[in-house]
Amino acid sequence: MAAIQTPKSQYQQVADLLRSRIADGTYSADQPLPSEPQLSAELGVSRQTINRAINVLRNAGLVRVRRGFGTFIRGVPQVTRDAKKRYAARNQGTGAGDVEMKALGLTPRTEYVEIGRAKAPSAVADALGIDVDAPVLVRRRRLFANDEPTQLADSFIPWDLAEGAPELLKRDAGRGGSYTRLAELGHGPVRFTEEVTVRTATEDEAQLLELDGGQPVIDITHVAWDAADRAVEVALHVMPGNLWRLRYDWDDPTADEYPTADGDA
Amino acid sequence: MAAIQTPKSQYQQVADLLRSRIADGTYSADQPLPSEPQLSAELGVSRQTINRAINVLRNAGLVRVRRGFGTFIRGVPQVTRDAKKRYAARNQGTGAGDVEMKALGLTPRTEYVEIGRAKAPSAVADALGIDVDAPVLVRRRRLFANDEPTQLADSFIPWDLAEGAPELLKRDAGRGGSYTRLAELGHGPVRFTEEVTVRTATEDEAQLLELDGGQPVIDITHVAWDAADRAVEVALHVMPGNLWRLRYDWDDPTADEYPTADGDA
Repeated sequence: MAAIQTPKSQYQQVADLLRSRIADGTYSADQPLPSEPQLSAELGVSRQTINRAINVLRNAGLVRVRRGFGTFIRGVPQVTRDAKKRYAARNQGTGAGDVEMKALGLTPRTEYVEIGRAKAPSAVADALGIDVDAPVLVRRRRLFANDEPTQLADSFIPWDLAEGAPELLKRDAGRGGSYTRLAELGHGPVRFTEEVTVRTATEDEAQLLELDGGQPVIDITHVAWDAADRAVEVALHVMPGNLWRLRYDWDDPTADEYPTADGDA
Repeated sequence: MAAIQTPKSQYQQVADLLRSRIADGTYSADQPLPSEPQLSAELGVSRQTINRAINVLRNAGLVRVRRGFGTFIRGVPQVTRDAKKRYAARNQGTGAGDVEMKALGLTPRTEYVEIGRAKAPSAVADALGIDVDAPVLVRRRRLFANDEPTQLADSFIPWDLAEGAPELLKRDAGRGGSYTRLAELGHGPVRFTEEVTVRTATEDEAQLLELDGGQPVIDITHVAWDAADRAVEVALHVMPGNLWRLRYDWDDPTADEYPTADGDA
């Protein structure tokens, strides 16, 4: 077995060892890893060291800890979310939330938590430029891949827009999704903004996303703007930090201001 | 004093109380907060509850814990990093790394850790599309605002490009920065991609960024592409998760595929 030497990064050595055992199939996806006391006895290190090592793997998205059941190898790998591509996918008949999962051969599932009229919470009112408590349509969803929760996605549309498109109150908002319904009302999104922050999951979120309390989540505030520069939808995404890789790309708006290249131009 | 009732979210109630004391100036920025034993005695809750409450504030970016010195109110507020704007700022003579801090009235400072020829690590080789260990110019920096570390920013340029512009080996890469030097060589960036992930800080990073080990960091892999679609620079940013708000915006490439709006179009 691997040498466990200096106290400084003992837990990192244990993490490396567990990682290689996951990679070579010593531990299988069907069964929990050996318990902390078992690993502690086998490797001759403290339970605290084992616990820290498992935290490293957990934060790297390799395992998930299910309280009372043990530590399991994750069934869902890290997923790349390409912002531009996902919102362009609606015309292929695929909901934006399913794009990445289908590309990885995973089975997406959407749980509709709430669809209906509600009062705009302050973060939503800020993003939409409307009054706090003004009426909005809310569509709250929890998304899964292979039955593991992958994100909470709550979408809000100002009620004066939403009431023009009754399909928005159904689970399936119809061909092309809600943005196509907004377009039919003359308010199709032409521009998007996203703000990304990182924080610790709340207790509710940790439960819904099957995370331990201390784990980081990514918050995405996605705003869709119509041609008149009105915010017509805001979507709040809460995503387990270890599960996602966010991808953005853009053309440099100032590329033509470079000095002329010597000889090449 | 505020009622501390149900055991379930006791620490959240303590966090709310401490938050309001920070907001109303009960605790000042010059001195550490009362110690955990002091707060435990005052509020009649366990030290563990105090510790969890302080973690909530720490993860929200309100306080920083300096080992051996205590818990301090943060001097640097959450900073918005607008990807498109920051890279467009070079023509105003401001380095991309300083844009956000100057906008907030904070004093930026750059510590140059290393500038020179090196072998491409695997993540860099992948991003640049070159062989692992191929020669690159590395520019390693640690950025500060008001003397608090705000990010590690390591930039890599393929050596066959970099050797054509000796200014790239200096701390100050000259007017317009490294992208303008690349443009003078005929390889000015015209397009950028960024990938964003979240993970726990390594021990080295935690020390350099003055974080505790368990805190999340944001990893940004920023790649600059020239007109021939060659990756001409990659920058790896490691940023305290609580300190930053990332902002992206883009035009919907498929907006013209919406069905025609009834009556409006």
